[in-house]
Amino acid sequence: MPDSSRLSVSEVRHLTLPAPLPLDCGERLEDVRIAYETWGEINADRSNVILVCHALTGDQFAGSENVVTGRPAWWPRMIGPGLPIDTDRYHVIATNVLGGCMGTTGPASTGPDGKPWGTRFPVITISDMVRAQRAFIDALEIESLFSVIGGSMGGMQAIEWAVQAPEQVFTSIPIATSARHSAQNIAFYEVGRQAIMADSDWCDGNYLAQGKRPGRGLAIARMAAHITYVSETALKRKFDRGLQDRDKTSFSFDADFQVESYLRYQGHSFVDRFDANSYLYVTRAMDYFDLAARHEGRLADAFRNTPVRFCLFSFSSDWHYPPQANREITRALAAAGAEVSYLDIETDKGHDAFLLDEPIYENALAGFLSASAERRGVA
Amino acid sequence: MPDSSRLSVSEVRHLTLPAPLPLDCGERLEDVRIAYETWGEINADRSNVILVCHALTGDQFAGSENVVTGRPAWWPRMIGPGLPIDTDRYHVIATNVLGGCMGTTGPASTGPDGKPWGTRFPVITISDMVRAQRAFIDALEIESLFSVIGGSMGGMQAIEWAVQAPEQVFTSIPIATSARHSAQNIAFYEVGRQAIMADSDWCDGNYLAQGKRPGRGLAIARMAAHITYVSETALKRKFDRGLQDRDKTSFSFDADFQVESYLRYQGHSFVDRFDANSYLYVTRAMDYFDLAARHEGRLADAFRNTPVRFCLFSFSSDWHYPPQANREITRALAAAGAEVSYLDIETDKGHDAFLLDEPIYENALAGFLSASAERRGVA
Repeated sequence: MPDSSRLSVSEVRHLTLPAPLPLDCGERLEDVRIAYETWGEINADRSNVILVCHALTGDQFAGSENVVTGRPAWWPRMIGPGLPIDTDRYHVIATNVLGGCMGTTGPASTGPDGKPWGTRFPVITISDMVRAQRAFIDALEIESLFSVIGGSMGGMQAIEWAVQAPEQVFTSIPIATSARHSAQNIAFYEVGRQAIMADSDWCDGNYLAQGKRPGRGLAIARMAAHITYVSETALKRKFDRGLQDRDKTSFSFDADFQVESYLRYQGHSFVDRFDANSYLYVTRAMDYFDLAARHEGRLADAFRNTPVRFCLFSFSSDWHYPPQANREITRALAAAGAEVSYLDIETDKGHDAFLLDEPIYENALAGFLSASAERRGVA
Repeated sequence: MPDSSRLSVSEVRHLTLPAPLPLDCGERLEDVRIAYETWGEINADRSNVILVCHALTGDQFAGSENVVTGRPAWWPRMIGPGLPIDTDRYHVIATNVLGGCMGTTGPASTGPDGKPWGTRFPVITISDMVRAQRAFIDALEIESLFSVIGGSMGGMQAIEWAVQAPEQVFTSIPIATSARHSAQNIAFYEVGRQAIMADSDWCDGNYLAQGKRPGRGLAIARMAAHITYVSETALKRKFDRGLQDRDKTSFSFDADFQVESYLRYQGHSFVDRFDANSYLYVTRAMDYFDLAARHEGRLADAFRNTPVRFCLFSFSSDWHYPPQANREITRALAAAGAEVSYLDIETDKGHDAFLLDEPIYENALAGFLSASAERRGVA
């Protein structure tokens, strides 16, 4: 039974952009809604604003419970009073990305003809997501960000902000990310997209109008992606070959193994909170992300003369966006003469480590923010 | 249009086992058909027989063209006159595994009631596959094998033969394999199984009786598995972010990238030659494989006093069955006092390297067989 205190997606806090949003594909989107949340007070000179960018399956509820799903905040270790992203000191904003499904305009939103966009929604890019965030920040009359922070796809946005609007970003903190999706990254997301599109309930992208949901395909997509978020070592440590509620294998296709049960749960629970078409669009935006390609193959050229101070993090066992991908960004920044810190955290938790209990990472991020705040004179 | 010279699966060369086959699940299978192929002549004392075991999606056509599909031999670099598995010297046999779909009894075969088995077929294990092969070799009146050789799942069978029938195996050559499926291995195959079972044309496993085929699900399963067969480096070398027949991205969900086009091709072409239920059964058999568990967690105990001479190979960039998994088998064999050689081949080709052009591997395998043949006095 739905909790009566919960809101529908259309009721979440949002702002409609005052002007049409130009997209990389050449189209323009009218009346773009940006769903967002904030924590902490903005200071008098508006110098303490931190924008937190979410990953593929995240949303604007980084620092507080999701009022639609009832799920807890996705970054509770990082955002809050006295935490690294200290809401006693900073004004923290998080938006749902363009193409998302938690209140920001996306394929599940209503299109200009009053029907769900579905796959008639234009294909968007990470640049488009950031362009939408910039218009949103402008609409809030915030002139510049003290910091833009994000992990995974959020890290791509943190980089993209520094590239699009270097004068508006004091610090950028990209975490466990990449400046170009690799062939293996594309391959995994293509499996997910094909699984969604193979579901007969996908209805050529038009399922909302037909009252259907391609839940089976979306669950498969989530399961495949989830494997990449965890290291082989962590899977062994957590599950190994442990059996689920049984003493011996069942000689069947039941979830005999804990890892099977876990993956099925990840898949099925995801379907309740995510739109399948959003999954197509947001993964596509990541696949298209290739910052060097926009600068004739020279990543450093993306950052020439940047005034932004960068701090990057990677995790040693992350095979989704491995340390090497983060090191390439760091090297390009150094080659461009940017101020950059980079820390590779030794952990066996894989890509998901950016959301988990990693004290060295949390302390280093807190320290970088704090030192930057002193330097900027954030009151 | 089908080539008229091709055979149907039911017409391939086969032998029906003379006695019922007992299975690990407790059931017994009657009238088990084993489909097989041979190359080279058997010698007078029958001491030159090599059994080649195939991997998940392989078949008995290791050394010659598949007469059903028209596809070339899957191990042409290894099997033939003057090649490492030298058909001028050895009598080479390959069977289709129990549960397979190239003529051996499996879920696509007709059950005792005259209808396709479908998922009424009992869940089988690697031990069952080898038990079926042993009954088949007995039926051919071959007392012992000079060698049993296989890569990936074929390697599991090569190990299992040495465990089940050590006195009947002179040498065993497990390649790029594992003595226990890891949590990550299980996870990937579970995604594939769920993709097949999510396809509405799967019909609860009963699709053959209903004239349907869960081709979309099977293609997704193949795509997900295929990623694990190739190293990240090889994907980058072969495809990187190269576009498929276009100069720029299409802002659509077409296969813009070569790696997408490649994966889609792998998925779609697989559907024509493989049975979806077979995919469920054969992957399940691999998931259940855990040799140490059958010996109270001590892998070495599986090999105590074995007279079998082992030669193992792994490939440095194989993340499906990584070198470590092969090293564990080697260590257990050494601890059990067995005669064992092990070679890790430096390559960026990933798991698939066992089928590809790797001269050091091919030469070492040829040398091991040749030295063993001299030792046994194979005429």
